[in-house]
Amino acid sequence: MCLYLEYWLLVSQLADGAGNGLLVLLLLPMGIKRPKSFAFLNFFITFPALKTNLTTRIIMTKEELMRKAIELSVQNVAEGGGPFGAVIARNGEIIAMGVNRVTPDCDPTAHAEVSAIRTAAKILGTFDLSGCEIYTSCEPCPMCLGAIYWAHLDRMYYGNSKKDAAKIGFDDAFIYEELDLKPEDRRLKSEVLLPEEAIKAFQDWENKTDKVEY
Amino acid sequence: MCLYLEYWLLVSQLADGAGNGLLVLLLLPMGIKRPKSFAFLNFFITFPALKTNLTTRIIMTKEELMRKAIELSVQNVAEGGGPFGAVIARNGEIIAMGVNRVTPDCDPTAHAEVSAIRTAAKILGTFDLSGCEIYTSCEPCPMCLGAIYWAHLDRMYYGNSKKDAAKIGFDDAFIYEELDLKPEDRRLKSEVLLPEEAIKAFQDWENKTDKVEY
Repeated sequence: MCLYLEYWLLVSQLADGAGNGLLVLLLLPMGIKRPKSFAFLNFFITFPALKTNLTTRIIMTKEELMRKAIELSVQNVAEGGGPFGAVIARNGEIIAMGVNRVTPDCDPTAHAEVSAIRTAAKILGTFDLSGCEIYTSCEPCPMCLGAIYWAHLDRMYYGNSKKDAAKIGFDDAFIYEELDLKPEDRRLKSEVLLPEEAIKAFQDWENKTDKVEY
Repeated sequence: MCLYLEYWLLVSQLADGAGNGLLVLLLLPMGIKRPKSFAFLNFFITFPALKTNLTTRIIMTKEELMRKAIELSVQNVAEGGGPFGAVIARNGEIIAMGVNRVTPDCDPTAHAEVSAIRTAAKILGTFDLSGCEIYTSCEPCPMCLGAIYWAHLDRMYYGNSKKDAAKIGFDDAFIYEELDLKPEDRRLKSEVLLPEEAIKAFQDWENKTDKVEY
């Protein structure tokens, strides 16, 4: 019973978005399974869990996780978003989900992968998602691929290719090509300004003794 | 007096994050300046403005805007964040500001540029920041440069280079190199999974008649 109390504590903390990676790690190796007589609890656990992009503790295969990302992408089109969905999982268990909400939320960065990463990091209470994998319905654009590297995700699975995306009007290829060019050759005009003043923050960073590196 | 009522309306709408680009455009060509006797209003205008990354209606030169980005980067080191700051401006006026809050906010995507873009888009109520420029204290990483393209920013100014960033431990160069490689050659392991099922969302998108493209 003590274990179930801990489990509930975990669920309620996750549902609050406070996150508690330690408890997850402690409980996972113990392979906790609720006895069938506790099945009536499912509703209470699932309800807050869904609201915070969590599911109950179900271990899924990589195909099942990808199908979840695909299901999110299909559902998101019906709900007015872009045709993209992503799932972040650890040891086969969903940590967070995300969909493309660029137009409905007026956020050019709200791609499925970025949204899933932000939610997973918030839930786990860390900026380092090592040990997690991402399942995305489409090969990521440079912004999302960059975010995947910064989040230190272990592995990526994707369904549609960037060529498929280009065919329906999402031309990530253009951005990939631009990134390859020198700043002066890019379509985006850029200019170096006041580098002699900008360096101060870097000097301060180097001299700071209590900095958190990432 | 009527003009000042409109001005207040604008400020309160922006402070709420609702945004109103039209009023900005209408008032700008009129070159509204508050008479000095209205100076006591500064506090009330500046206070909510600061909370939403806005300043009063001051037209700044590109050097002044870059200095603001640099000031943010220096201040952010002192406040426990990374040494990066960014400003988004339109016609010389600050729309939004952002700093790197990766470690304090547990968000691997919370780079200065991404944060500034998200705030600017929220304030202006659009995912398309055409007509705006970004001033960033350091040359953007691939994630942020991708975000700049998706946001359709007109122009970019930067202070420190990515080489300067690498010298103090922020190795964006590694991510730039990885993006150049074919998926199978990257350090990040990836795998194509269920493309035949993933294509459904793209087909739905193509068939959707009321979609918002971007």
